[in-house]
Amino acid sequence: MENAKIKELLNKVKSGELSVEQAVSKLQTSPFEDLGFAKVDHHREIRQGVPEVIFGQGKTCEQILEIAGSMLKKDINNILVTRLSSEKATVLNEKLDFKYYETAEIGVISPVFIPPTDSIVAMVSGGTSDMRVAEEAAVTAEVLGNQVVRIYDVGVAGLHRLLSQMDVLVRAKVIIAVAGMEGALASVVGGLVSCPVIAVPTSIGYGANLGGISALLSMLNSCSSGVSVVNIDNGFGAGYIANMINKL
Amino acid sequence: MENAKIKELLNKVKSGELSVEQAVSKLQTSPFEDLGFAKVDHHREIRQGVPEVIFGQGKTCEQILEIAGSMLKKDINNILVTRLSSEKATVLNEKLDFKYYETAEIGVISPVFIPPTDSIVAMVSGGTSDMRVAEEAAVTAEVLGNQVVRIYDVGVAGLHRLLSQMDVLVRAKVIIAVAGMEGALASVVGGLVSCPVIAVPTSIGYGANLGGISALLSMLNSCSSGVSVVNIDNGFGAGYIANMINKL
Amino acid sequence: MENAKIKELLNKVKSGELSVEQAVSKLQTSPFEDLGFAKVDHHREIRQGVPEVIFGQGKTCEQILEIAGSMLKKDINNILVTRLSSEKATVLNEKLDFKYYETAEIGVISPVFIPPTDSIVAMVSGGTSDMRVAEEAAVTAEVLGNQVVRIYDVGVAGLHRLLSQMDVLVRAKVIIAVAGMEGALASVVGGLVSCPVIAVPTSIGYGANLGGISALLSMLNSCSSGVSVVNIDNGFGAGYIANMINKL
Amino acid sequence: MENAKIKELLNKVKSGELSVEQAVSKLQTSPFEDLGFAKVDHHREIRQGVPEVIFGQGKTCEQILEIAGSMLKKDINNILVTRLSSEKATVLNEKLDFKYYETAEIGVISPVFIPPTDSIVAMVSGGTSDMRVAEEAAVTAEVLGNQVVRIYDVGVAGLHRLLSQMDVLVRAKVIIAVAGMEGALASVVGGLVSCPVIAVPTSIGYGANLGGISALLSMLNSCSSGVSVVNIDNGFGAGYIANMINKL
Amino acid sequence: MENAKIKELLNKVKSGELSVEQAVSKLQTSPFEDLGFAKVDHHREIRQGVPEVIFGQGKTCEQILEIAGSMLKKDINNILVTRLSSEKATVLNEKLDFKYYETAEIGVISPVFIPPTDSIVAMVSGGTSDMRVAEEAAVTAEVLGNQVVRIYDVGVAGLHRLLSQMDVLVRAKVIIAVAGMEGALASVVGGLVSCPVIAVPTSIGYGANLGGISALLSMLNSCSSGVSVVNIDNGFGAGYIANMINKL
Amino acid sequence: MENAKIKELLNKVKSGELSVEQAVSKLQTSPFEDLGFAKVDHHREIRQGVPEVIFGQGKTCEQILEIAGSMLKKDINNILVTRLSSEKATVLNEKLDFKYYETAEIGVISPVFIPPTDSIVAMVSGGTSDMRVAEEAAVTAEVLGNQVVRIYDVGVAGLHRLLSQMDVLVRAKVIIAVAGMEGALASVVGGLVSCPVIAVPTSIGYGANLGGISALLSMLNSCSSGVSVVNIDNGFGAGYIANMINKL
Amino acid sequence: MENAKIKELLNKVKSGELSVEQAVSKLQTSPFEDLGFAKVDHHREIRQGVPEVIFGQGKTCEQILEIAGSMLKKDINNILVTRLSSEKATVLNEKLDFKYYETAEIGVISPVFIPPTDSIVAMVSGGTSDMRVAEEAAVTAEVLGNQVVRIYDVGVAGLHRLLSQMDVLVRAKVIIAVAGMEGALASVVGGLVSCPVIAVPTSIGYGANLGGISALLSMLNSCSSGVSVVNIDNGFGAGYIANMINKL
Amino acid sequence: MENAKIKELLNKVKSGELSVEQAVSKLQTSPFEDLGFAKVDHHREIRQGVPEVIFGQGKTCEQILEIAGSMLKKDINNILVTRLSSEKATVLNEKLDFKYYETAEIGVISPVFIPPTDSIVAMVSGGTSDMRVAEEAAVTAEVLGNQVVRIYDVGVAGLHRLLSQMDVLVRAKVIIAVAGMEGALASVVGGLVSCPVIAVPTSIGYGANLGGISALLSMLNSCSSGVSVVNIDNGFGAGYIANMINKL
Repeated sequence: MENAKIKELLNKVKSGELSVEQAVSKLQTSPFEDLGFAKVDHHREIRQGVPEVIFGQGKTCEQILEIAGSMLKKDINNILVTRLSSEKATVLNEKLDFKYYETAEIGVISPVFIPPTDSIVAMVSGGTSDMRVAEEAAVTAEVLGNQVVRIYDVGVAGLHRLLSQMDVLVRAKVIIAVAGMEGALASVVGGLVSCPVIAVPTSIGYGANLGGISALLSMLNSCSSGVSVVNIDNGFGAGYIANMINKL
Repeated sequence: MENAKIKELLNKVKSGELSVEQAVSKLQTSPFEDLGFAKVDHHREIRQGVPEVIFGQGKTCEQILEIAGSMLKKDINNILVTRLSSEKATVLNEKLDFKYYETAEIGVISPVFIPPTDSIVAMVSGGTSDMRVAEEAAVTAEVLGNQVVRIYDVGVAGLHRLLSQMDVLVRAKVIIAVAGMEGALASVVGGLVSCPVIAVPTSIGYGANLGGISALLSMLNSCSSGVSVVNIDNGFGAGYIANMINKL
Repeated sequence: MENAKIKELLNKVKSGELSVEQAVSKLQTSPFEDLGFAKVDHHREIRQGVPEVIFGQGKTCEQILEIAGSMLKKDINNILVTRLSSEKATVLNEKLDFKYYETAEIGVISPVFIPPTDSIVAMVSGGTSDMRVAEEAAVTAEVLGNQVVRIYDVGVAGLHRLLSQMDVLVRAKVIIAVAGMEGALASVVGGLVSCPVIAVPTSIGYGANLGGISALLSMLNSCSSGVSVVNIDNGFGAGYIANMINKL
Repeated sequence: MENAKIKELLNKVKSGELSVEQAVSKLQTSPFEDLGFAKVDHHREIRQGVPEVIFGQGKTCEQILEIAGSMLKKDINNILVTRLSSEKATVLNEKLDFKYYETAEIGVISPVFIPPTDSIVAMVSGGTSDMRVAEEAAVTAEVLGNQVVRIYDVGVAGLHRLLSQMDVLVRAKVIIAVAGMEGALASVVGGLVSCPVIAVPTSIGYGANLGGISALLSMLNSCSSGVSVVNIDNGFGAGYIANMINKL
Repeated sequence: MENAKIKELLNKVKSGELSVEQAVSKLQTSPFEDLGFAKVDHHREIRQGVPEVIFGQGKTCEQILEIAGSMLKKDINNILVTRLSSEKATVLNEKLDFKYYETAEIGVISPVFIPPTDSIVAMVSGGTSDMRVAEEAAVTAEVLGNQVVRIYDVGVAGLHRLLSQMDVLVRAKVIIAVAGMEGALASVVGGLVSCPVIAVPTSIGYGANLGGISALLSMLNSCSSGVSVVNIDNGFGAGYIANMINKL
Repeated sequence: MENAKIKELLNKVKSGELSVEQAVSKLQTSPFEDLGFAKVDHHREIRQGVPEVIFGQGKTCEQILEIAGSMLKKDINNILVTRLSSEKATVLNEKLDFKYYETAEIGVISPVFIPPTDSIVAMVSGGTSDMRVAEEAAVTAEVLGNQVVRIYDVGVAGLHRLLSQMDVLVRAKVIIAVAGMEGALASVVGGLVSCPVIAVPTSIGYGANLGGISALLSMLNSCSSGVSVVNIDNGFGAGYIANMINKL
Repeated sequence: MENAKIKELLNKVKSGELSVEQAVSKLQTSPFEDLGFAKVDHHREIRQGVPEVIFGQGKTCEQILEIAGSMLKKDINNILVTRLSSEKATVLNEKLDFKYYETAEIGVISPVFIPPTDSIVAMVSGGTSDMRVAEEAAVTAEVLGNQVVRIYDVGVAGLHRLLSQMDVLVRAKVIIAVAGMEGALASVVGGLVSCPVIAVPTSIGYGANLGGISALLSMLNSCSSGVSVVNIDNGFGAGYIANMINKL
Repeated sequence: MENAKIKELLNKVKSGELSVEQAVSKLQTSPFEDLGFAKVDHHREIRQGVPEVIFGQGKTCEQILEIAGSMLKKDINNILVTRLSSEKATVLNEKLDFKYYETAEIGVISPVFIPPTDSIVAMVSGGTSDMRVAEEAAVTAEVLGNQVVRIYDVGVAGLHRLLSQMDVLVRAKVIIAVAGMEGALASVVGGLVSCPVIAVPTSIGYGANLGGISALLSMLNSCSSGVSVVNIDNGFGAGYIANMINKL
């Protein structure tokens, strides 16, 4: 469309309908939309394989349906809806081609099967209470077409359980480490492997965990190289980055 | 070496010199060192191409020389010394095969040339005051054998300067975004590209920048997907992770 | 009234009923109320065009009605009630000449149409979740008689959408930038224009957004000159200041 | 220059040397620099009357001279250098057309006299210890061509001193309120006037002032409408915004 | 009772029933309870005129009744119950000689009229939303027998209202200043008078008020001498200290 | 079991069924689980006398029953369930051999009586509002077989009550000090005794207690030697450590 | 002087030179200075016995001499200079009638002996490291004419030392409690006496004392009634308030 | 001495020189010092084997000599001086029977050899930069007569080094875990052993380590039971508690 506009403009220049000076002026006063800058955005869609994500929390079913509707019209599929309660999922399920992952609290609108990668995203998590965030990350990566291996309940208080999974850790192309409380899991995992580790602090804990700040600080100060951090409880973000890295 | 020990033990079992029960006991009481667990560490060296890093800050030249000496004996080369002042570098230069990067404050002991990758690590930075941290990241990546393209002085207050470098950003396999003050650069870059962005908050700024905490929080809360964060001023960490990702 | 008291006093001086010394003494022992100091307050009403605002949150309908009643008696019109739920609005609507703006959660008692300014207040906002605060600012400015142009959903993660609105931004006399998460929008906008930018951090986000503190710190540390900041979620304050500036 | 490039391109389209398709492609792959986007920046200079500011802190005289040199070549005058120590000022003075304001710690390179505005910027400050920040704001506004009236030493602990200056406050078009400790001055001033108040918290104080955070929080929570806030000790920012508003 | 024990011991020493050495040993092994140390506590009751206070929040009516019962048995009257909801008050009222102050959320069990002092405790408060805390302080002081003069709705945003009450402020022996938001009231009042000012920050506000921390910090950093501070929302504590000072 | 596997492997080596090289390889690729590393965990159970604890908060009865079921199958008894509401306790009581401590909010599954130690764990607590945390610590220690002496309601505001219990304090082998508000109790107790003091800050308080952070900081800064601290409200942790020390 | 102006104005009214309307207008446009409002300030000097204090920190000897000079001209004596280093004191001593208190770091210009009160200000302090702040408070109170009894080195880690001074504590009219680290001293003292306690947190300590914030929070959360708090290290403020209370 | 006073008093009762009533009165008005309450303190010395510690930081050699002198007069030996620079140590060494531990920065005045315990205090530490704090803890424990086994340089980034020391960890009666950065070491160690672990966070690190707060929070939130925490860098405190526990 934008291309069409520029072409039209250039054709007018070619035909003499528009002087060069007039064309320069037109180009400069509307430099972005008319000149097809949106192409950059378009490129993102193609390369990343995930065009858009709807943050479900705080949105009504009506709002989600409206946003999804306009996406579907543009032939966008495999749309993730994160932080989606099961109540809303039930409603959406009745009106859309829809798939819901309960623990992850993720819905997928117009799901498309993407064959999983050969390379592995390892999903490591400490306690059962970190499960929601861990699953948000794992399902995000899976829906985007990654092979995910889950290694759950391997907190540092029982180190042997983690160490017994060394073979999987060593084979992973990228690891997501989800942990609340003191967040030590990220450092321990980072010290055992040589691939990038995406650390996700969770708000699980009590007292001086400060809603996840303790785990966040712990992960930022990791003594293991190779660890980078996303926001507290941001399982989606971690899954998204893992997808980027695993597809390289 | 450890292998040798285990072989010796197994040979003794084979020859009957040691009973099975005695061997079990020996194996279980020294499960790590003797059983070659250190192999994990060894593997790290081989794969990552960087065996060890010396954090120079707070160490005397004598301490650095001693640590380096024991590494050189093990035939470890290309040893990075980070946060190294030019005064210490001068001293080290007299006694070692040594190369010093002044702005980055990084020294390399027994440097080895590693041919740079074809793929690009883009190094994006806002102000000249972030230069030290940016160079720490860039030099780290370069010494580890990556092709680094520097895009400096492209803060969000002058957005056109950043946008004019879109062609480089789009070609990069991984981007490091270094920024102090409000740290908005990471979000803006993350919104323009589809590759992983490693964000490095710096302690540059004054007043309510809180020694880099403001930039750190900003980056963690990035509205752009694909951004993960390392510790404040941790240029080395960012360069190290970029190397991991770029070599995939 | 106060004027009357002073006149009375001065008349007594004139008539000799009161000595000059007695008058001096009387004036000095009651320097404020009796001397009409409230006039300062009165002046504020006239100049600013908005006599008083009722902060609706935490007040019952009865309390609001009582306060409004005493204002209406003084012939004060166009009274804003901020942070007013739709439930309370329904009640007030039955008893007062009343207009309610639902998204903004603002009610206007005894509304008076003020012809909008020719100059523009641009209202820029990142995500749909910042809408309530953005509308609180926009409606405040509109009710006070300003022409407001809304530019919504232009977060820095999709920069081209913001840039495509450059023509409006450049024409604005003052801009309000509302943003949660990392608050980068204020810096980006501030770098594109040469008019004052009022930044409003919102409490939208999760994890390390700390109830809006992250966006607040980000905005305070803006690398763009021309940006000043109001309290988290303080849409009213921003609209009020924009009115002050736009009317200059 | 950029215009020239576009003209050349369009002329080639006109002459048929370049097909419309080729031109579209060329335009889209280099959308910013080549298309004259830098014009936006250029516009800023013209309108704001202050092309660029050098943040002097942490820069050597050599670095400042180099930056200034490249500006002077572009015929940019009246360049502010903020946070400049008197030692550095002495050096710069020998090599440049230079003026130095000692208390404000501001230098002006190639100073140009701009006739002051009729309207007033009032500069209100609490204690003598806030003087450096207050003067940074005042001198910034003055160098940019504003008439500034200083009202110093009017802290809230001696309210009558502030109140005795009501006539100036009431006449001001914009007020800058600089205060450390509890920062109450901004609220008190904001309650007395009907023009915008730019509040600047300073790091002056001790104990629980937390390097200015106490004053900053106080100002953000001001119960007086019309108060917006800049970063701690950011006198320059306040003077710059005051200039923007005063020139409207 | 304790006295009796010591007398008994001493009488045994006198009569020779106990040796001096035995008595020394007995005294030293039970130095507190047996030696009547509780007397200190007893003295407190007599002097302060308020024997005990029950913090009602989080306690059931049964628990309050039990505690009150054991006090009443010891002939303790005029017992304050703070942070008491009206629901609980209704229950207590049925079973006890009881008086309830609704806004203050204070109940008094077995109330005793104490004739008020001639000297004045002035109670100064900013907004109607600070009323609960202000009344908690005022009622506490009144129940303890102080003459309290309330000066409400005198926030610093409307300074003339406060100044018009100068005559009361100047006559007070001690002032309680209750304020939320930026807490500037304490400094302003402290600058106008020469008596002690007890500042009570409240948790009223939003955004960066941080649950009262902003007002607290502001008050601690007051530039006016004579201001000391109690905990956020601690109206009782302020009323209690005002009673101490006013009775001197 | 694991021993069996290793024995089998070694027997194969002995018999020549497996070469030494093959055995080395097998040992190294499964270094933890197969080599009986889990033994470490096993040892913990035996020595500490408490095999596992279920953190009840946030878990459904079904989840607790499932976890407990798998433990009971392994003949694990005396299983603590902490932070268990009385509602859930009623459900569990119907299905399990179960004992519930209401104030402590602790349940014990398949309780086993362990004869109490001769040595004393003293449980010191300030106010009745700290009771839940104090009882969580006391019951934990008792269920693990310790003699616990409770000294409640001995806050520092009534020092004589604490001092009258000196004889118990002096006899204790380890003391748990539970306190909210300013947490001074830990320092005072630490200054009176010569045994280890485990300090537990509680979230009891209001205003600037910051959810227990004030008490936590106070305890960490104790001027009395011998005081170490656990997380806010972590009664279980304190009881567990007290058990460790008391059994030495 | 101001009186003169008003008299002149009133005389003109009396003589008919000025109409009543003109006089009203004149009075209202210059309500403060001309109407003698400064009288309030004047009153403060008389009543409080201390006209002005110079905060010495960060001021040069020249600045102090200049301020002092202008005070001495107005016949103000007994001027306190706080936070004054011994180096500066030596210089001032040569040029002024001067007395210096070394530990307190307080100088007195033109000292005047004020006979001490009969009633006692008790000065209680924990460690020798709190001495500077404690002496700043004690000397402030003494210079203002109070009898001060120092009770030093009575930290809560050695409670018996404090308790052995009960007789002094009980006799005091007001107590200043200075403490760093965990600040428990204020609560303990507050629990032993029935007079007001002014608590001064100090920045003494290390690690998590956070520059005195820990002690500050502890004191604000005191479980003892009667404790109010001043800023960290604010010995002067405490001495000043103690003077106010002790003179009642 | 105190005993003498009481004896004297009791003898006077016995002889009739003092009536029982007079004696009761005398006892009650001076309940602490005269009644030998200091005995409690005396007991501490005997049992703990360490009578007093001098915190050397911020004290001059003269002050240390004076304090030490008065201790030596009371026949107190083996006096620890912590945080003592080598410069001061050199001075003290010339004047006292003195021993200095350089890395630990601890001096011992009038050292006495205490035969070490059979049981082990294990000292675990992550990096060489934590050495000073680790040695402060280790030397404290050794000087008090404990057998200390040092396990240094076993950070979680190289887990195999820690695991290879399992045999020592398992044999320890109490473990001190010293760690900076993310402080994960405490959790990992706590998960491997069944004895009490005293965690010491250090201020080592940079960026978001916040002077040790990150490590502190991490340790407080440890998912491993049995871990209690002391203040940041408080090696002495940890060594002191370890001594208490190891001697049980």
